[in-house]
Amino acid sequence: MQPNDVQVLAFDIFGTVVDWHGSIVREVGALYPQVDADAFVLAWRAGYQPAMQRVRSGELGWTLIDDLHRMVLDEILPRFGLAQLGEDERRHLNRVWHRLDPWPDSVQGLTRLKRRYTITSLSNGNIGLLTNMAKRAGLPWDCVLSAEVFRAYKPDPATYLGVARVFGLPPQQVMLVAAHHEDLEGARACGLRTAYIERPHEFGAAHPKDVSPQPGNDLHCASLMALADRLGC
Amino acid sequence: MQPNDVQVLAFDIFGTVVDWHGSIVREVGALYPQVDADAFVLAWRAGYQPAMQRVRSGELGWTLIDDLHRMVLDEILPRFGLAQLGEDERRHLNRVWHRLDPWPDSVQGLTRLKRRYTITSLSNGNIGLLTNMAKRAGLPWDCVLSAEVFRAYKPDPATYLGVARVFGLPPQQVMLVAAHHEDLEGARACGLRTAYIERPHEFGAAHPKDVSPQPGNDLHCASLMALADRLGC
Repeated sequence: MQPNDVQVLAFDIFGTVVDWHGSIVREVGALYPQVDADAFVLAWRAGYQPAMQRVRSGELGWTLIDDLHRMVLDEILPRFGLAQLGEDERRHLNRVWHRLDPWPDSVQGLTRLKRRYTITSLSNGNIGLLTNMAKRAGLPWDCVLSAEVFRAYKPDPATYLGVARVFGLPPQQVMLVAAHHEDLEGARACGLRTAYIERPHEFGAAHPKDVSPQPGNDLHCASLMALADRLGC
Repeated sequence: MQPNDVQVLAFDIFGTVVDWHGSIVREVGALYPQVDADAFVLAWRAGYQPAMQRVRSGELGWTLIDDLHRMVLDEILPRFGLAQLGEDERRHLNRVWHRLDPWPDSVQGLTRLKRRYTITSLSNGNIGLLTNMAKRAGLPWDCVLSAEVFRAYKPDPATYLGVARVFGLPPQQVMLVAAHHEDLEGARACGLRTAYIERPHEFGAAHPKDVSPQPGNDLHCASLMALADRLGC
């Protein structure tokens, strides 16, 4: 690939730029020490794709991730002995997705990449969530793009092609950066360039993830710093 | 007003944060010295509201500002002896709206305001235009919101209420900052707070604008630095 052709880097967020597992384990562990925080956060995240699938299938109308997270949360709380949580506590806990910590390389890697490229989020998370997260974590986005802008969840082609359209570029001048192969496959099918980022501990150190290279991606990097190295930033 | 209630400041862009008249006069003057650049840019801008009105009325389907700017440009070029401009020159000239310079107080004022508030654009300009402009000019947005996100042009209530909805806030916790009374009126009618910014030379020093206070705004400031002073940033 010729990295100079690429103008825009679009980043998946949950797992790629921020550590949802570690961040939520820390917060749930502090708030509710009686709960198995690791099992709790895995159960919460396990409800994420099925909830989005209900939107994709049309069973649910367009629904923001904040509201999908809340639906799943309400469902799992009784299983963890937290059925008694009131509205304020539920609302506060649900907003933990706005308070996720970046991986150690994320802020510095993005700062380097921003020198040469336009860097934007492309997340299924809603705009408010992504903006609050970025402000707290210091993620230096040029632009906050979300499924909310396109009213479609990844891997719907409307999201990947939407980034190219927003910037008036052909798809091959946009690169999706993600830690998830199915996301990258969706982008590739639309003509975008792709970079895989290894996040072996996305599901926690106790549940290592296979991060071996798969064919088809333009780049395979251990971190956003390594991506900046590869792109000469 | 109690400024501590406000969480989000949403900024009008053309004329409020950036100097469209001066920037385009400089660029057109350099590219086409035979043209009366002041008259040219005023004619271009004069076509802006009528073009948006064609979208608001439904005569045109949803159309981005980049495309509306281009329609107006194609219309006025013959009047200024530039009918011979080819496609590449027209496209380059049309993108001058992505290259507008900020007013001298904008970057420092926004940087101060960003410490305490979430700062976002709320412009009829499209997302790509706003992002390219911000990157070039150093405008430190937390978020880039545009009519494009809401598929409605200001002063449609969907835009002002859209900002509140994106951040999950009641309208009175969002303040619109603008140099145009009709924009502020639209926001006020939706329950937002409002701050008027004086930009007496929006249409050039030769065409001073009345910037005297009008009733109803929460704040009336000479610049974004003065707004930062008033909001204690």
